[in-house]
Amino acid sequence: MTAARALPDAEAVRQAAGRIEKFAIRTPLLEFPPLNERAGGRIFVKPEILQRTGSFKFRGAYSRLSRLDAEERRAGVLAWSSGNHAQGVASAAALLGLRATILMPADAPRMKMERTRSFGAEVVTYDRLGEDREAMGRAIAAESGAVIVPPYDDPDVIAGQGTVGLEIAEDAMRLGVALDEVLVPAGGGGLVAGSALALSELPRPPRIYSVEPDGYDDHRRSLAAGRRVGNEAGRVSICDALMAPMPGEITFEINRKLLAGGLVVNDDDVIAAMRFAFEEMKLVVVHDKTTGEQ
Amino acid sequence: MTAARALPDAEAVRQAAGRIEKFAIRTPLLEFPPLNERAGGRIFVKPEILQRTGSFKFRGAYSRLSRLDAEERRAGVLAWSSGNHAQGVASAAALLGLRATILMPADAPRMKMERTRSFGAEVVTYDRLGEDREAMGRAIAAESGAVIVPPYDDPDVIAGQGTVGLEIAEDAMRLGVALDEVLVPAGGGGLVAGSALALSELPRPPRIYSVEPDGYDDHRRSLAAGRRVGNEAGRVSICDALMAPMPGEITFEINRKLLAGGLVVNDDDVIAAMRFAFEEMKLVVVHDKTTGEQ
Repeated sequence: MTAARALPDAEAVRQAAGRIEKFAIRTPLLEFPPLNERAGGRIFVKPEILQRTGSFKFRGAYSRLSRLDAEERRAGVLAWSSGNHAQGVASAAALLGLRATILMPADAPRMKMERTRSFGAEVVTYDRLGEDREAMGRAIAAESGAVIVPPYDDPDVIAGQGTVGLEIAEDAMRLGVALDEVLVPAGGGGLVAGSALALSELPRPPRIYSVEPDGYDDHRRSLAAGRRVGNEAGRVSICDALMAPMPGEITFEINRKLLAGGLVVNDDDVIAAMRFAFEEMKLVVVHDKTTGEQ
Repeated sequence: MTAARALPDAEAVRQAAGRIEKFAIRTPLLEFPPLNERAGGRIFVKPEILQRTGSFKFRGAYSRLSRLDAEERRAGVLAWSSGNHAQGVASAAALLGLRATILMPADAPRMKMERTRSFGAEVVTYDRLGEDREAMGRAIAAESGAVIVPPYDDPDVIAGQGTVGLEIAEDAMRLGVALDEVLVPAGGGGLVAGSALALSELPRPPRIYSVEPDGYDDHRRSLAAGRRVGNEAGRVSICDALMAPMPGEITFEINRKLLAGGLVVNDDDVIAAMRFAFEEMKLVVVHDKTTGEQ
Protein backbone atom coordinates (compact mmCIF):
# COMPACT_ATOMS: atom_id res chain seq x y z
CA MET A 1 0.00 0.00 0.00
CA THR A 2 2.72 2.43 0.95
CA ALA A 3 4.70 1.80 -2.22
CA ALA A 4 1.74 2.90 -4.34
CA ARG A 5 1.74 6.40 -2.86
CA ALA A 6 4.30 9.02 -3.79
CA LEU A 7 6.70 10.28 -1.13
CA PRO A 8 5.66 13.67 0.21
CA ASP A 9 7.86 16.67 -0.64
CA ALA A 10 8.26 20.25 0.57
CA GLU A 11 5.31 21.34 -1.57
CA ALA A 12 3.14 18.72 0.17
CA VAL A 13 4.14 20.27 3.50
CA ARG A 14 3.16 23.75 2.28
CA GLN A 15 -0.21 22.41 1.14
CA ALA A 16 -0.72 20.73 4.50
CA ALA A 17 0.05 24.06 6.19
CA GLY A 18 -2.81 25.61 4.23
CA ARG A 19 -5.20 22.85 5.26
CA ILE A 20 -4.43 22.97 8.99
CA GLU A 21 -4.03 26.76 9.32
CA LYS A 22 -7.47 27.48 10.74
CA PHE A 23 -7.21 24.94 13.55
CA ALA A 24 -3.57 24.19 14.32
CA ILE A 25 -1.79 26.58 16.66
CA ARG A 26 1.22 28.26 15.14
CA THR A 27 3.59 27.65 18.04
CA PRO A 28 6.37 30.24 18.42
CA LEU A 29 10.14 29.83 18.31
CA LEU A 30 11.17 30.59 21.88
CA GLU A 31 14.59 31.71 23.05
CA PHE A 32 15.73 31.63 26.67
CA PRO A 33 18.91 33.41 27.81
CA PRO A 34 19.68 30.78 30.51
CA LEU A 35 19.54 28.07 27.84
CA ASN A 36 21.80 30.03 25.50
CA GLU A 37 24.27 30.52 28.34
CA ARG A 38 24.43 26.83 29.12
CA ALA A 39 24.76 25.86 25.48
CA GLY A 40 27.20 28.60 24.53
CA GLY A 41 25.11 29.58 21.51
CA ARG A 42 21.61 30.53 20.47
CA ILE A 43 19.04 27.79 21.06
CA PHE A 44 15.46 28.05 19.84
CA VAL A 45 12.68 25.92 21.24
CA LYS A 46 9.46 25.03 19.40
CA PRO A 47 6.96 24.17 22.18
CA GLU A 48 4.55 21.81 20.47
CA ILE A 49 3.28 20.94 23.91
CA LEU A 50 1.12 24.04 23.43
CA GLN A 51 -0.37 22.64 20.23
CA ARG A 52 -4.06 21.74 20.13
CA THR A 53 -4.47 18.43 22.06
CA GLY A 54 -1.02 18.91 23.60
CA SER A 55 1.23 17.55 20.87
CA PHE A 56 2.21 17.92 17.20
CA LYS A 57 0.09 14.85 16.41
CA PHE A 58 -2.92 17.06 15.72
CA ARG A 59 -1.15 18.49 12.66
CA GLY A 60 -0.70 15.14 10.92
CA ALA A 61 -4.15 13.91 11.88
CA TYR A 62 -5.93 16.99 10.59
CA SER A 63 -3.74 17.03 7.46
CA ARG A 64 -4.82 13.46 6.68
CA LEU A 65 -8.48 13.72 7.66
CA SER A 66 -9.05 16.92 5.71
CA ARG A 67 -8.11 15.05 2.50
CA LEU A 68 -10.70 12.29 2.80
CA ASP A 69 -13.20 12.08 -0.04
CA ALA A 70 -16.97 12.13 0.48
CA GLU A 71 -17.29 8.35 0.72
CA GLU A 72 -14.42 8.05 3.21
CA ARG A 73 -15.88 10.88 5.28
CA ARG A 74 -19.13 8.98 5.60
CA ALA A 75 -17.24 5.85 6.71
CA GLY A 76 -15.31 7.66 9.45
CA VAL A 77 -11.82 6.99 10.75
CA LEU A 78 -10.06 4.55 13.03
CA ALA A 79 -6.74 4.74 14.88
CA TRP A 80 -4.92 2.86 17.61
CA SER A 81 -2.89 4.75 20.14
CA SER A 82 -2.63 5.05 23.87
CA GLY A 83 -1.89 8.75 23.80
CA ASN A 84 -1.18 11.72 21.61
CA HIS A 85 -2.17 10.25 18.23
CA ALA A 86 -5.51 9.17 19.74
CA GLN A 87 -6.32 12.70 20.82
CA GLY A 88 -5.03 14.25 17.59
CA VAL A 89 -7.26 12.00 15.47
CA ALA A 90 -10.27 12.38 17.79
CA SER A 91 -9.98 16.17 17.80
CA ALA A 92 -9.46 16.45 14.02
CA ALA A 93 -12.45 14.14 13.42
CA ALA A 94 -14.63 16.27 15.70
CA LEU A 95 -13.67 19.46 13.87
CA LEU A 96 -14.50 17.84 10.52
CA GLY A 97 -17.71 16.21 11.78
CA LEU A 98 -16.42 12.67 11.23
CA ARG A 99 -17.03 9.54 13.25
CA ALA A 100 -13.85 8.32 14.97
CA THR A 101 -13.08 4.99 16.60
CA ILE A 102 -9.97 4.78 18.77
CA LEU A 103 -8.48 1.55 20.08
CA MET A 104 -6.93 2.05 23.50
CA PRO A 105 -5.53 -0.45 25.99
CA ALA A 106 -8.07 -1.35 28.66
CA ASP A 107 -5.60 -0.29 31.35
CA ALA A 108 -4.98 3.16 29.87
CA PRO A 109 -5.45 5.91 32.46
CA ARG A 110 -9.08 6.89 32.84
CA MET A 111 -8.28 10.57 32.18
CA LYS A 112 -6.71 9.70 28.85
CA MET A 113 -9.78 7.80 27.74
CA GLU A 114 -12.09 10.52 28.96
CA ARG A 115 -10.15 13.15 27.07
CA THR A 116 -10.36 11.08 23.89
CA ARG A 117 -14.09 10.45 24.42
CA SER A 118 -14.65 14.15 25.14
CA PHE A 119 -13.95 14.80 21.44
CA GLY A 120 -16.85 12.50 20.62
CA ALA A 121 -14.71 9.52 19.61
CA GLU A 122 -15.80 5.97 20.34
CA VAL A 123 -13.13 4.30 22.45
CA VAL A 124 -12.75 0.53 22.01
CA THR A 125 -10.52 -1.14 24.55
CA TYR A 126 -8.27 -4.15 24.14
CA ASP A 127 -6.13 -6.30 26.41
CA ARG A 128 -2.58 -5.05 25.98
CA LEU A 129 -1.05 -8.42 26.81
CA GLY A 130 -3.52 -10.77 25.13
CA GLU A 131 -4.69 -8.96 21.98
CA ASP A 132 -2.98 -7.59 18.86
CA ARG A 133 -4.33 -4.06 18.52
CA GLU A 134 -3.31 -3.73 14.91
CA ALA A 135 -5.10 -6.95 13.86
CA MET A 136 -8.10 -5.93 15.90
CA GLY A 137 -8.11 -2.44 14.36
CA ARG A 138 -7.89 -3.82 10.84
CA ALA A 139 -10.77 -6.19 11.54
CA ILE A 140 -13.02 -3.39 12.82
CA ALA A 141 -12.07 -1.17 9.88
CA ALA A 142 -12.73 -3.97 7.39
CA GLU A 143 -16.22 -4.36 8.79
CA SER A 144 -17.16 -0.69 9.20
CA GLY A 145 -15.26 0.65 6.20
CA ALA A 146 -13.51 3.17 8.46
CA VAL A 147 -10.26 4.69 7.14
CA ILE A 148 -7.24 3.74 9.23
CA VAL A 149 -5.11 6.76 10.20
CA PRO A 150 -1.53 5.59 10.74
CA PRO A 151 0.49 7.45 13.39
CA TYR A 152 3.44 8.21 11.10
CA ASP A 153 3.86 6.09 7.97
CA ASP A 154 1.52 8.04 5.72
CA PRO A 155 2.34 10.85 3.25
CA ASP A 156 -0.39 13.22 4.48
CA VAL A 157 0.45 12.59 8.14
CA ILE A 158 4.14 13.25 7.43
CA ALA A 159 3.28 16.41 5.48
CA GLY A 160 1.16 17.61 8.40
CA GLN A 161 3.90 17.01 10.98
CA GLY A 162 6.27 18.76 8.58
CA THR A 163 4.46 22.04 9.16
CA VAL A 164 6.49 22.17 12.39
CA GLY A 165 9.66 22.37 10.30
CA LEU A 166 8.04 24.80 7.86
CA GLU A 167 7.19 27.17 10.71
CA ILE A 168 10.73 26.85 12.08
CA ALA A 169 12.12 27.69 8.63
CA GLU A 170 9.79 30.68 8.22
CA ASP A 171 10.50 32.05 11.67
CA ALA A 172 14.25 31.63 11.25
CA MET A 173 14.08 33.61 8.00
CA ARG A 174 12.01 36.32 9.68
CA LEU A 175 14.49 36.52 12.56
CA GLY A 176 17.42 36.62 10.17
CA VAL A 177 18.88 33.51 11.79
CA ALA A 178 20.78 30.82 9.85
CA LEU A 179 20.11 27.58 11.70
CA ASP A 180 23.15 25.30 12.08
CA GLU A 181 21.39 22.26 13.49
CA VAL A 182 17.81 21.20 14.10
CA LEU A 183 17.14 18.40 16.62
CA VAL A 184 13.81 16.58 16.37
CA PRO A 185 12.53 13.80 18.63
CA ALA A 186 11.73 10.57 16.80
CA GLY A 187 9.43 7.64 17.51
CA GLY A 188 8.28 6.42 14.10
CA GLY A 189 10.05 9.35 12.46
CA GLY A 190 7.13 11.29 10.99
CA LEU A 191 7.87 14.60 12.67
CA VAL A 192 11.54 14.61 11.73
CA ALA A 193 10.86 13.42 8.16
CA GLY A 194 8.21 16.06 7.45
CA SER A 195 10.27 18.78 9.13
CA ALA A 196 13.34 17.78 7.13
CA LEU A 197 11.39 18.21 3.88
CA ALA A 198 10.61 21.82 4.77
CA LEU A 199 13.94 22.69 6.38
CA SER A 200 15.94 21.34 3.45
CA GLU A 201 14.51 24.13 1.30
CA LEU A 202 16.18 26.85 3.35
CA PRO A 203 18.87 28.81 1.46
CA ARG A 204 21.44 27.28 3.82
CA PRO A 205 19.88 24.05 5.08
CA PRO A 206 20.69 23.03 8.67
CA ARG A 207 22.03 19.64 9.68
CA ILE A 208 19.02 17.73 10.96
CA TYR A 209 19.25 15.03 13.65
CA SER A 210 16.73 12.63 15.10
CA VAL A 211 16.80 12.48 18.92
CA GLU A 212 15.77 9.26 20.65
CA PRO A 213 15.71 7.80 24.13
CA ASP A 214 18.40 5.34 25.17
CA GLY A 215 17.31 1.84 24.17
CA TYR A 216 15.07 3.17 21.37
CA ASP A 217 17.76 4.55 19.08
CA ASP A 218 16.50 2.72 16.00
CA HIS A 219 16.82 5.85 13.88
CA ARG A 220 20.42 6.44 14.91
CA ARG A 221 21.38 2.87 14.12
CA SER A 222 19.28 2.71 10.94
CA LEU A 223 20.80 5.94 9.64
CA ALA A 224 24.28 4.61 10.38
CA ALA A 225 23.52 1.25 8.73
CA GLY A 226 21.68 2.72 5.73
CA ARG A 227 18.74 0.39 6.31
CA ARG A 228 15.92 0.04 8.84
CA VAL A 229 16.89 -1.82 11.99
CA GLY A 230 14.67 -2.34 15.01
CA ASN A 231 15.04 -2.00 18.77
CA GLU A 232 15.54 -4.82 21.22
CA ALA A 233 12.28 -5.69 22.92
CA GLY A 234 11.73 -5.02 26.60
CA ARG A 235 13.78 -1.87 27.13
CA VAL A 236 12.24 0.82 29.32
CA SER A 237 12.27 4.59 28.95
CA ILE A 238 10.35 7.47 30.50
CA CYS A 239 9.79 8.74 26.93
CA ASP A 240 6.76 6.55 26.37
CA ALA A 241 5.71 8.42 23.21
CA LEU A 242 9.02 7.60 21.51
CA MET A 243 9.08 3.84 21.95
CA ALA A 244 8.35 2.82 18.35
CA PRO A 245 9.87 -0.55 17.38
CA MET A 246 11.49 0.57 14.10
CA PRO A 247 11.58 3.57 11.71
CA GLY A 248 8.62 3.72 9.30
CA GLU A 249 9.08 2.68 5.69
CA ILE A 250 8.11 6.04 4.21
CA THR A 251 9.63 8.09 6.99
CA PHE A 252 12.97 6.28 6.68
CA GLU A 253 13.00 6.70 2.91
CA ILE A 254 12.93 10.46 3.57
CA ASN A 255 15.13 10.49 6.64
CA ARG A 256 17.99 8.45 5.18
CA LYS A 257 18.36 11.12 2.48
CA LEU A 258 17.89 14.26 4.55
CA LEU A 259 19.19 13.57 8.07
CA ALA A 260 22.76 14.12 9.25
CA GLY A 261 22.45 11.38 11.88
CA GLY A 262 20.80 10.37 15.13
CA LEU A 263 21.38 11.48 18.71
CA VAL A 264 20.54 9.62 21.91
CA VAL A 265 19.56 10.89 25.36
CA ASN A 266 19.19 8.92 28.56
CA ASP A 267 16.47 9.25 31.19
CA ASP A 268 18.69 11.40 33.43
CA ASP A 269 19.18 13.89 30.57
CA VAL A 270 15.43 13.92 30.00
CA ILE A 271 14.62 14.50 33.66
CA ALA A 272 17.17 17.33 33.86
CA ALA A 273 15.63 18.90 30.75
CA MET A 274 12.11 18.59 32.20
CA ARG A 275 13.29 20.37 35.34
CA PHE A 276 15.00 23.09 33.30
CA ALA A 277 11.84 23.57 31.20
CA PHE A 278 9.75 23.95 34.34
CA GLU A 279 12.06 26.34 36.15
CA GLU A 280 13.47 28.45 33.36
CA MET A 281 11.03 28.11 30.47
CA LYS A 282 7.73 27.92 32.39
CA LEU A 283 6.68 24.84 30.45
CA VAL A 284 5.22 21.75 32.11
CA VAL A 285 6.85 18.99 30.10
CA VAL A 286 5.92 15.96 32.15
CA HIS A 287 4.40 12.58 31.74
CA ASP A 288 1.10 13.41 33.38
CA LYS A 289 -2.27 12.04 34.20
CA THR A 290 -4.00 14.12 31.53
CA THR A 291 -2.32 13.09 28.33
CA GLY A 292 -0.22 10.20 29.58
CA GLU A 293 2.65 11.08 27.30
CA GLN A 294 4.35 13.91 25.50
CA MET B 1 6.44 66.22 30.09
CA THR B 2 3.71 63.74 29.25
CA ALA B 3 1.37 66.45 27.96
CA ALA B 4 3.97 67.51 25.39
CA ARG B 5 3.97 64.11 23.71
CA ALA B 6 1.17 62.99 21.45
CA LEU B 7 -0.96 60.02 22.48
CA PRO B 8 0.04 56.86 20.63
CA ASP B 9 -2.42 55.44 18.11
CA ALA B 10 -2.90 52.18 16.22
CA GLU B 11 -0.31 53.27 13.64
CA ALA B 12 2.23 53.75 16.47
CA VAL B 13 1.55 50.16 17.55
CA ARG B 14 2.15 48.88 14.00
CA GLN B 15 5.42 50.82 13.86
CA ALA B 16 6.46 49.39 17.22
CA ALA B 17 5.70 45.90 15.86
CA GLY B 18 8.18 46.53 13.08
CA ARG B 19 10.86 47.68 15.53
CA ILE B 20 10.55 44.73 17.91
CA GLU B 21 9.95 42.00 15.31
CA LYS B 22 13.48 40.64 15.22
CA PHE B 23 13.75 40.14 18.98
CA ALA B 24 10.29 39.84 20.50
CA ILE B 25 8.69 36.41 20.40
CA ARG B 26 5.40 36.30 18.55
CA THR B 27 3.47 34.37 21.16
CA PRO B 28 0.60 32.25 19.79
CA LEU B 29 -3.10 32.39 20.52
CA LEU B 30 -3.73 29.12 22.33
CA GLU B 31 -7.03 27.32 22.66
CA PHE B 32 -7.71 24.54 25.17
CA PRO B 33 -10.83 22.34 24.95
CA PRO B 34 -11.10 21.96 28.76
CA LEU B 35 -11.13 25.76 29.10
CA ASN B 36 -13.78 26.13 26.40
CA GLU B 37 -15.89 23.50 28.16
CA ARG B 38 -15.72 25.29 31.48
CA ALA B 39 -16.46 28.67 29.94
CA GLY B 40 -19.17 27.48 27.56
CA GLY B 41 -17.52 29.27 24.63
CA ARG B 42 -14.23 29.64 22.80
CA ILE B 43 -11.47 31.11 24.93
CA PHE B 44 -8.08 32.08 23.51
CA VAL B 45 -5.02 32.55 25.68
CA LYS B 46 -2.01 34.70 24.77
CA PRO B 47 0.86 33.28 26.87
CA GLU B 48 3.18 36.26 27.26
CA ILE B 49 4.91 34.27 29.97
CA LEU B 50 6.81 32.75 27.03
CA GLN B 51 7.96 36.19 25.88
CA ARG B 52 11.66 37.06 26.01
CA THR B 53 12.51 37.73 29.72
CA GLY B 54 9.25 36.05 30.76
CA SER B 55 6.76 38.90 30.33
CA PHE B 56 5.32 41.38 27.84
CA LYS B 57 7.50 44.09 29.39
CA PHE B 58 10.26 43.35 26.88
CA ARG B 59 8.04 44.65 24.08
CA GLY B 60 7.58 48.11 25.56
CA ALA B 61 11.19 48.38 26.68
CA TYR B 62 12.61 47.46 23.27
CA SER B 63 10.05 49.68 21.53
CA ARG B 64 11.22 52.65 23.61
CA LEU B 65 14.96 51.94 23.57
CA SER B 66 15.08 51.38 19.82
CA ARG B 67 13.87 54.97 19.31
CA LEU B 68 16.64 56.66 21.29
CA ASP B 69 18.76 59.12 19.31
CA ALA B 70 22.55 58.90 19.12
CA GLU B 71 23.13 61.17 22.11
CA GLU B 72 20.62 59.33 24.28
CA ARG B 73 22.16 56.01 23.28
CA ARG B 74 25.54 57.19 24.52
CA ALA B 75 23.99 58.26 27.83
CA GLY B 76 22.32 54.90 28.44
CA VAL B 77 19.05 54.15 30.21
CA LEU B 78 17.74 53.89 33.75
CA ALA B 79 14.68 52.17 35.20
CA TRP B 80 13.31 51.22 38.60
CA SER B 81 11.53 47.96 39.05
CA SER B 82 11.71 44.91 41.23
CA GLY B 83 10.73 42.53 38.48
CA ASN B 84 9.60 42.24 34.91
CA HIS B 85 10.25 45.80 33.74
CA ALA B 86 13.80 45.54 35.11
CA GLN B 87 14.53 42.49 33.01
CA GLY B 88 12.75 43.86 29.94
CA VAL B 89 14.83 47.06 30.01
CA ALA B 90 18.07 45.23 30.82
CA SER B 91 17.56 42.74 27.99
CA ALA B 92 16.57 45.41 25.43
CA ALA B 93 19.58 47.51 26.42
CA ALA B 94 21.89 44.53 26.00
CA LEU B 95 20.52 43.79 22.52
CA LEU B 96 21.03 47.43 21.51
CA GLY B 97 24.46 47.71 23.14
CA LEU B 98 23.33 50.36 25.64
CA ARG B 99 24.39 50.90 29.23
CA ALA B 100 21.51 50.19 31.65
CA THR B 101 21.16 51.07 35.31
CA ILE B 102 18.35 49.39 37.26
CA LEU B 103 17.24 50.40 40.74
CA MET B 104 16.09 47.40 42.73
CA PRO B 105 15.13 47.04 46.39
CA ALA B 106 18.05 45.74 48.48
CA ASP B 107 15.87 42.88 49.68
CA ALA B 108 14.88 41.73 46.18
CA PRO B 109 15.48 38.00 45.68
CA ARG B 110 19.08 37.27 44.73
CA MET B 111 17.99 35.34 41.61
CA LYS B 112 16.08 38.34 40.35
CA MET B 113 19.09 40.60 40.71
CA GLU B 114 21.37 38.03 39.14
CA ARG B 115 19.07 37.66 36.16
CA THR B 116 19.00 41.44 35.69
CA ARG B 117 22.79 41.64 36.05
CA SER B 118 23.20 38.74 33.63
CA PHE B 119 22.03 41.08 30.84
CA GLY B 120 24.95 43.37 31.70
CA ALA B 121 22.86 45.92 33.59
CA GLU B 122 24.25 47.76 36.62
CA VAL B 123 21.97 47.08 39.57
CA VAL B 124 21.76 49.83 42.20
CA THR B 125 19.96 48.86 45.37
CA TYR B 126 17.85 51.01 47.68
CA ASP B 127 16.14 50.55 51.02
CA ARG B 128 12.49 49.89 50.23
CA LEU B 129 11.30 51.34 53.51
CA GLY B 130 13.64 54.28 53.92
CA GLU B 131 14.33 55.54 50.39
CA ASP B 132 12.18 56.95 47.56
CA ARG B 133 13.27 54.99 44.51
CA GLU B 134 11.78 57.46 42.06
CA ALA B 135 13.60 60.46 43.60
CA MET B 136 16.77 58.39 43.76
CA GLY B 137 16.38 57.31 40.14
CA ARG B 138 15.81 60.85 38.95
CA ALA B 139 18.90 62.03 40.85
CA ILE B 140 21.11 59.37 39.28
CA ALA B 141 19.67 60.10 35.82
CA ALA B 142 20.18 63.85 36.25
CA GLU B 143 23.83 63.23 37.02
CA SER B 144 24.59 60.60 34.38
CA GLY B 145 22.26 61.91 31.68
CA ALA B 146 20.66 58.46 31.44
CA VAL B 147 17.21 58.30 29.87
CA ILE B 148 14.53 57.15 32.29
CA VAL B 149 12.36 54.34 30.90
CA PRO B 150 8.95 54.47 32.59
CA PRO B 151 7.17 51.16 33.13
CA TYR B 152 3.92 52.26 31.46
CA ASP B 153 3.26 55.97 31.13
CA ASP B 154 5.19 56.54 27.91
CA PRO B 155 3.86 56.54 24.31
CA ASP B 156 6.58 54.24 22.95
CA VAL B 157 6.25 51.83 25.86
CA ILE B 158 2.46 51.73 25.37
CA ALA B 159 2.89 51.21 21.62
CA GLY B 160 5.28 48.33 22.32
CA GLN B 161 2.93 46.63 24.77
CA GLY B 162 0.17 47.18 22.21
CA THR B 163 1.84 44.71 19.86
CA VAL B 164 0.22 42.06 22.08
CA GLY B 165 -3.20 43.35 21.00
CA LEU B 166 -2.05 43.70 17.40
CA GLU B 167 -1.00 40.05 17.30
CA ILE B 168 -4.30 39.02 18.87
CA ALA B 169 -6.17 41.02 16.21
CA GLU B 170 -4.08 39.53 13.38
CA ASP B 171 -4.44 35.97 14.63
CA ALA B 172 -8.19 36.36 15.16
CA MET B 173 -8.55 37.57 11.55
CA ARG B 174 -6.44 34.64 10.32
CA LEU B 175 -8.54 32.17 12.31
CA GLY B 176 -11.76 33.76 11.08
CA VAL B 177 -12.82 34.47 14.65
CA ALA B 178 -14.77 37.56 15.70
CA LEU B 179 -13.69 38.31 19.26
CA ASP B 180 -16.50 39.31 21.62
CA GLU B 181 -14.41 40.31 24.61
CA VAL B 182 -10.72 40.74 25.36
CA LEU B 183 -9.57 40.68 28.98
CA VAL B 184 -6.19 42.24 29.79
CA PRO B 185 -4.48 42.40 33.18
CA ALA B 186 -3.72 45.93 34.35
CA GLY B 187 -1.18 47.42 36.75
CA GLY B 188 -0.38 50.86 35.35
CA GLY B 189 -2.52 50.11 32.31
CA GLY B 190 0.08 50.15 29.53
CA LEU B 191 -0.65 46.68 28.18
CA VAL B 192 -4.41 47.18 28.04
CA ALA B 193 -4.10 50.70 26.58
CA GLY B 194 -1.74 49.67 23.79
CA SER B 195 -3.70 46.52 23.05
CA ALA B 196 -6.95 48.51 22.92
CA LEU B 197 -5.46 50.82 20.28
CA ALA B 198 -4.78 47.84 18.01
CA LEU B 199 -7.95 45.87 18.78
CA SER B 200 -10.19 48.85 18.19
CA GLU B 201 -9.23 48.77 14.52
CA LEU B 202 -10.80 45.34 13.99
CA PRO B 203 -13.82 45.36 11.64
CA ARG B 204 -15.98 44.41 14.62
CA PRO B 205 -14.07 45.64 17.69
CA PRO B 206 -14.37 43.52 20.84
CA ARG B 207 -15.35 44.86 24.24
CA ILE B 208 -12.10 45.33 26.13
CA TYR B 209 -11.83 45.01 29.91
CA SER B 210 -9.00 45.61 32.35
CA VAL B 211 -8.58 42.82 34.91
CA GLU B 212 -7.16 43.63 38.33
CA PRO B 213 -6.59 41.93 41.65
CA ASP B 214 -8.97 42.59 44.50
CA GLY B 215 -7.83 45.68 46.40
CA TYR B 216 -6.01 47.07 43.34
CA ASP B 217 -9.03 47.77 41.15
CA ASP B 218 -8.06 51.37 40.43
CA HIS B 219 -8.83 50.93 36.73
CA ARG B 220 -12.30 49.57 37.39
CA ARG B 221 -13.14 52.43 39.72
CA SER B 222 -11.45 55.06 37.55
CA LEU B 223 -13.31 53.89 34.45
CA ALA B 224 -16.59 53.99 36.37
CA ALA B 225 -15.85 57.46 37.77
CA GLY B 226 -14.48 58.90 34.52
CA ARG B 227 -11.33 60.13 36.29
CA ARG B 228 -8.20 58.58 37.81
CA VAL B 229 -8.67 57.35 41.35
CA GLY B 230 -6.04 55.51 43.39
CA ASN B 231 -5.98 52.41 45.58
CA GLU B 232 -6.02 52.34 49.34
CA ALA B 233 -2.54 51.79 50.70
CA GLY B 234 -1.60 48.60 52.49
CA ARG B 235 -3.73 46.02 50.68
CA VAL B 236 -2.10 42.71 49.84
CA SER B 237 -2.37 40.54 46.74
CA ILE B 238 -0.46 37.63 45.30
CA CYS B 239 -0.43 39.53 41.97
CA ASP B 240 2.62 41.55 42.90
CA ALA B 241 3.16 42.80 39.34
CA LEU B 242 -0.26 44.45 39.28
CA MET B 243 -0.04 46.55 42.44
CA ALA B 244 0.30 49.98 40.82
CA PRO B 245 -1.13 52.80 42.94
CA MET B 246 -3.23 54.47 40.21
CA PRO B 247 -3.76 54.35 36.41
CA GLY B 248 -1.14 56.24 34.38
CA GLU B 249 -1.99 59.63 32.92
CA ILE B 250 -1.41 58.64 29.31
CA THR B 251 -2.70 55.11 29.72
CA PHE B 252 -5.93 56.34 31.32
CA GLU B 253 -6.47 58.93 28.60
CA ILE B 254 -6.54 55.99 26.16
CA ASN B 255 -8.34 53.51 28.37
CA ARG B 256 -11.22 55.78 29.34
CA LYS B 257 -12.08 56.10 25.65
CA LEU B 258 -11.56 52.50 24.54
CA LEU B 259 -12.38 50.20 27.46
CA ALA B 260 -15.80 48.76 28.26
CA GLY B 261 -15.01 48.55 31.96
CA GLY B 262 -12.90 46.84 34.59
CA LEU B 263 -13.10 43.36 36.12
CA VAL B 264 -11.75 42.19 39.47
CA VAL B 265 -10.43 38.78 40.57
CA ASN B 266 -9.55 37.64 44.07
CA ASP B 267 -6.54 35.59 45.16
CA ASP B 268 -8.59 32.37 45.22
CA ASP B 269 -9.58 32.89 41.57
CA VAL B 270 -5.95 33.52 40.71
CA ILE B 271 -4.72 30.41 42.51
CA ALA B 272 -7.39 28.28 40.79
CA ALA B 273 -6.34 29.72 37.43
CA MET B 274 -2.66 29.00 38.16
CA ARG B 275 -3.53 25.40 38.95
CA PHE B 276 -5.64 25.10 35.80
CA ALA B 277 -2.81 26.55 33.70
CA PHE B 278 -0.37 24.04 35.14
CA GLU B 279 -2.59 20.98 34.77
CA GLU B 280 -4.45 21.66 31.56
CA MET B 281 -2.36 24.21 29.69
CA LYS B 282 1.15 23.07 30.63
CA LEU B 283 2.13 26.60 31.60
CA VAL B 284 3.96 27.42 34.82
CA VAL B 285 2.26 30.65 35.82
CA VAL B 286 3.59 31.09 39.33
CA HIS B 287 5.25 33.68 41.46
CA ASP B 288 8.68 32.09 41.40
CA LYS B 289 12.21 32.57 42.50
CA THR B 290 13.45 33.38 39.00
CA THR B 291 11.42 36.38 37.98
CA GLY B 292 9.73 37.11 41.27
CA GLU B 293 6.54 38.18 39.55
CA GLN B 294 4.41 37.64 36.50
